[in-house]
Amino acid sequence: MHSSPSIEAIREAAEKIMPYIHRTPVFTSATINRICRGQIYFKSENMQKVGAFKARGAVNAVFSLGEEDFPANGNGEKCVTTHSSGNHAAALAYAARCRGITSHVVMPENAPPVKKSAVAGYGARITYTEPTQQAREETLKDIVAQTGAVFIHPYNDRRVIAGQATAALELMEQIPDLDTIITPVGGGGLLSGTALSVSSLQPGTEVLGAEPAGADDAFRSLQAGKIIPLTNPQTIADGLRTSLGSLTFPIIYKHVRAILTADEEAIIEAMRLTWERMKLVVEPSASLPLAALMSKRDQVKGEKIGLIISGGNVDLDHLPWQKG
Amino acid sequence: MHSSPSIEAIREAAEKIMPYIHRTPVFTSATINRICRGQIYFKSENMQKVGAFKARGAVNAVFSLGEEDFPANGNGEKCVTTHSSGNHAAALAYAARCRGITSHVVMPENAPPVKKSAVAGYGARITYTEPTQQAREETLKDIVAQTGAVFIHPYNDRRVIAGQATAALELMEQIPDLDTIITPVGGGGLLSGTALSVSSLQPGTEVLGAEPAGADDAFRSLQAGKIIPLTNPQTIADGLRTSLGSLTFPIIYKHVRAILTADEEAIIEAMRLTWERMKLVVEPSASLPLAALMSKRDQVKGEKIGLIISGGNVDLDHLPWQKG
Repeated sequence: MHSSPSIEAIREAAEKIMPYIHRTPVFTSATINRICRGQIYFKSENMQKVGAFKARGAVNAVFSLGEEDFPANGNGEKCVTTHSSGNHAAALAYAARCRGITSHVVMPENAPPVKKSAVAGYGARITYTEPTQQAREETLKDIVAQTGAVFIHPYNDRRVIAGQATAALELMEQIPDLDTIITPVGGGGLLSGTALSVSSLQPGTEVLGAEPAGADDAFRSLQAGKIIPLTNPQTIADGLRTSLGSLTFPIIYKHVRAILTADEEAIIEAMRLTWERMKLVVEPSASLPLAALMSKRDQVKGEKIGLIISGGNVDLDHLPWQKG
Repeated sequence: MHSSPSIEAIREAAEKIMPYIHRTPVFTSATINRICRGQIYFKSENMQKVGAFKARGAVNAVFSLGEEDFPANGNGEKCVTTHSSGNHAAALAYAARCRGITSHVVMPENAPPVKKSAVAGYGARITYTEPTQQAREETLKDIVAQTGAVFIHPYNDRRVIAGQATAALELMEQIPDLDTIITPVGGGGLLSGTALSVSSLQPGTEVLGAEPAGADDAFRSLQAGKIIPLTNPQTIADGLRTSLGSLTFPIIYKHVRAILTADEEAIIEAMRLTWERMKLVVEPSASLPLAALMSKRDQVKGEKIGLIISGGNVDLDHLPWQKG
């Protein structure tokens, strides 16, 4: 379980998840091309099932579990579980429903109502906890002990990484000969998966990560050559407030030349530009690649640049460019 | 100039506008299919140039003008003009820029800043007036007198109708065998064009219009068998606050079985559902087909239903589901 997924594993993941996953479209905008001085391609994972690329990894992980992976428990029910306040929770609930098994999700009680109802809508059994890491982990441990549920980590899992890697697989088929591909980086599942796909199949294409300046653990980890955990993230990009993992860091360290950062103003500007010009609802985390490209254009190679738009789940009652 | 465009004219329009217009994608949503009990196809004209189907009609009209259509004026400059606070203004400015001629747009001084800057961004010369119909028409008359500009009406123009008709032409190619197609109806350019395309090529497909209950002139006109002008429209659907025209009404009367209406609450609900589930930024007017379908499902024939999503230009600082 502790080596990188191979390109064969990624191809198997693509086949396995195909019935449950959208092949998402790629969009362009003449205005954004002009602003960014290049041909910019938006791989729209905001239109993915559950509204985020996370469906890919979760479906691959859940459908990779064999009979032998489920511990015997009292009632013989197969379960999976995770703790998350974000897209991975909905993705795991969706994946479990696709397979016809039970999911248990541990969520902080202060999670946004829209996320709670999304996870509940996919049929998960939700346990609410205090919003601390310790409370979440202890509750998860209890659930595993009581139900025999298999824990699916949001990113530090090679089946999850292989699943996330399939987005870049599709993008390379849809738009050949990209000079550069940029993805957001939080825990590193999407970035490491993208780096594996691209370095295997199209090594001339450069892969870059993009993260908030206020949560720049990947940037600092790459500089230090070791994982520097994120301590006090300050960003509206709620999907990117996590540290790299022991599986994702080495892949990123090997295959990703640089992590670009963007400040909060640039993130909001990029998000708004995507809504206004592309008519796409994207979440703050998904706006990092464009924000970084607009802020650091000189650090990005080439003309043809693919951006992976990671998700579109956002609280429509509170938009970041609105006061109050 | 006072007969309906033929299917040949519509096909010519499609060819003429092709270099300047997107073939917009068609999207579906499992959730919306479930809610509407059918296969619902969203023809996404919100992703059209200038963010609305209006680009089709304006480009066709501007590129249909021959040398002889431009009156000789002082400096030999070719100009077009219109008065509009909405998408037609941006569309005409865009069309004129594509052809390399000048556009003059008369806008009410209280038009939203985002619309003013969109029109200015496409290079139009803007004249602001008091927000009354009389002021707009007088200013337009002055501009025509001074510059020899050709007036392009937003909907009561057969070249405009032929251009708008091309959206349905594409939709029928993209999704064959639709049972029903629903479009919003304001002045009736899109609905009449759609009705002409569909009745010529696929007469088994029913065409319906959808309009706000608070601006139901098309509904009442169809019942009365004559144009009943809209007097005091009460709706957030700012693109649908206009009355049918002398060219659009007879086409709609002949080819459209019914106009469905939706109240404001249903419009806002449909708009929000489209943002949340489809990740598409759509404007209130564009949400009428879905709102009407959800409100009046029993009046819509068949399983496979196409909705023309007319535009996505919306003030992101003030969303209709937000208070204040």
